[in-house]
Amino acid sequence: MLDHNLLGGKLTRGPSAIDSYSLLKEGKQLTSEEIILISSLGWCIEWLQGYFLVHDDIMDGSSKRRGRPCWFRLDKVGMIAVNDGVLLRNHIAVILKQHFRGKPYYVDLLELFNEVEYQTACGQMIDLITTQEKDLSKYSLSIHGRIVQYKTAYYSFYLPVSMVACALLMAGENLDNHANAKDILIKMGIYFQVQDDYLDCFADPQVLGKNGTDIKDFKCSWLVVQALERCNEEQKKILDENYGIDDKACVAKIEALYKDLKLEDVYREYEENTYEELINSIEDEETKLSKPMQAVLKSFLEKIYKRQK
Amino acid sequence: MLDHNLLGGKLTRGPSAIDSYSLLKEGKQLTSEEIILISSLGWCIEWLQGYFLVHDDIMDGSSKRRGRPCWFRLDKVGMIAVNDGVLLRNHIAVILKQHFRGKPYYVDLLELFNEVEYQTACGQMIDLITTQEKDLSKYSLSIHGRIVQYKTAYYSFYLPVSMVACALLMAGENLDNHANAKDILIKMGIYFQVQDDYLDCFADPQVLGKNGTDIKDFKCSWLVVQALERCNEEQKKILDENYGIDDKACVAKIEALYKDLKLEDVYREYEENTYEELINSIEDEETKLSKPMQAVLKSFLEKIYKRQK
Repeated sequence: MLDHNLLGGKLTRGPSAIDSYSLLKEGKQLTSEEIILISSLGWCIEWLQGYFLVHDDIMDGSSKRRGRPCWFRLDKVGMIAVNDGVLLRNHIAVILKQHFRGKPYYVDLLELFNEVEYQTACGQMIDLITTQEKDLSKYSLSIHGRIVQYKTAYYSFYLPVSMVACALLMAGENLDNHANAKDILIKMGIYFQVQDDYLDCFADPQVLGKNGTDIKDFKCSWLVVQALERCNEEQKKILDENYGIDDKACVAKIEALYKDLKLEDVYREYEENTYEELINSIEDEETKLSKPMQAVLKSFLEKIYKRQK
Repeated sequence: MLDHNLLGGKLTRGPSAIDSYSLLKEGKQLTSEEIILISSLGWCIEWLQGYFLVHDDIMDGSSKRRGRPCWFRLDKVGMIAVNDGVLLRNHIAVILKQHFRGKPYYVDLLELFNEVEYQTACGQMIDLITTQEKDLSKYSLSIHGRIVQYKTAYYSFYLPVSMVACALLMAGENLDNHANAKDILIKMGIYFQVQDDYLDCFADPQVLGKNGTDIKDFKCSWLVVQALERCNEEQKKILDENYGIDDKACVAKIEALYKDLKLEDVYREYEENTYEELINSIEDEETKLSKPMQAVLKSFLEKIYKRQK
């Protein structure tokens, strides 16, 4: 279960915790205790991610993940996967207890993981409810932003930086309040999910490791929201009649519409603009970020900029 | 979602926390703050229970719960129920943070819920794996005991008492170490699950609020374990050929076999003996339990003794 669900992915979130810690220490040599502690935190995020993916795949009825069948699709697994997801989540508390019990920031770490899990579940709830209502008139950039902020941004971007900042701050390091970085991290998380939405339709499934399902699943994807903003009445009719229908011909019509509306160009422009805005916010003196924190945020941004999977 | 999954059950676990607290305070008047705090803890257990039931019903493929359709069986719900279970769990952390942040035992409460959830998930894992293997030769009283200890006893019996003891101890009350009560609470939890197993087959579905599914689901139930211990070769053949098959005639054959083996009498004898053993352990001077703690354990036992649902 662990091999299937923790390995085989991009493994970006875990190492990013270690990178961030090093950057915030401004090149000072890490002690072996520090390396173990920060690596444990990195793995906690990977276990959290594994847990979310196991449950998400069940709820979305997905088939493939990371180039393999989804965990719950295996004959020997099925709905036991619900409990396996819970076991992955529970191991975070075990890891934190083993390595951080007695540290002054132990309770902060417990709370951070609890809060981020809760925010993610709330995002997942809005996502699933809107998907199920099948009412295109409810889809807009603002609802897309809300879903994405909760279901992706907190755990993928806010969590790793907060966790590391928490460990550093409480260990007495001199560090500016990382709360200033929060808005930027949330924006970066939204950008990351927009990439996900784009790749779901436009990436090579071989590279992505799965086939896109957003169109047939009636997902509140960035692409459909953009299409709704740009379509004429005739194109709106195509959306109404074909979006969210599990039929190859219907999906193909939506894909063709996305191409007609030049959403690939819209995406490229969005990506350029967002990258520039984020760099500007990071460097903006009014944001009052220290140079090391700026370096952390930039390293996150560089990791995802123009990603293909 | 909350109305459907928190209400309509026996609601024994939550109030038992409040009763235990009162008993441990030996009749001293509770302050209004104490009443709010202990009631919050009582609700935490009910939310935990709601969360477990939502997930268990998905994994067991159940139809009814508390006289109504299982949550995931509703058209508007389906697999979103996985996330709803997670939301119920996450609210425990929200409740604990709201009422206990800053208390000296806050971190102990967080850890207690984490550990008990983990133990329950482990019990669920052993239960599901053995059920799926469909190998009667692996079923025994000892594996039954292990499953039940983890999946039921910790959260239903050990948790409420530990939680209350934790609040009292840390608030500076003079109380003997509740760890002495642990073994007794686990035994009581096993007795409670044996009742569950018995009622699954022998209770009136109208009273129970659901139809039994253990036989068709190939569950490692106390009844099948007893049957395996008592059957002759011919009866063993009936078990081998009919246990775990989702067919009314097969289920009826197993039910008839249970009656032939007089498992109702075996159960009644088990219940009497267990009740007596538990009372003896509670009163045993070697167990070194204070009178108030003895009263707590006895009140738990009286609540479940000879229960019909």
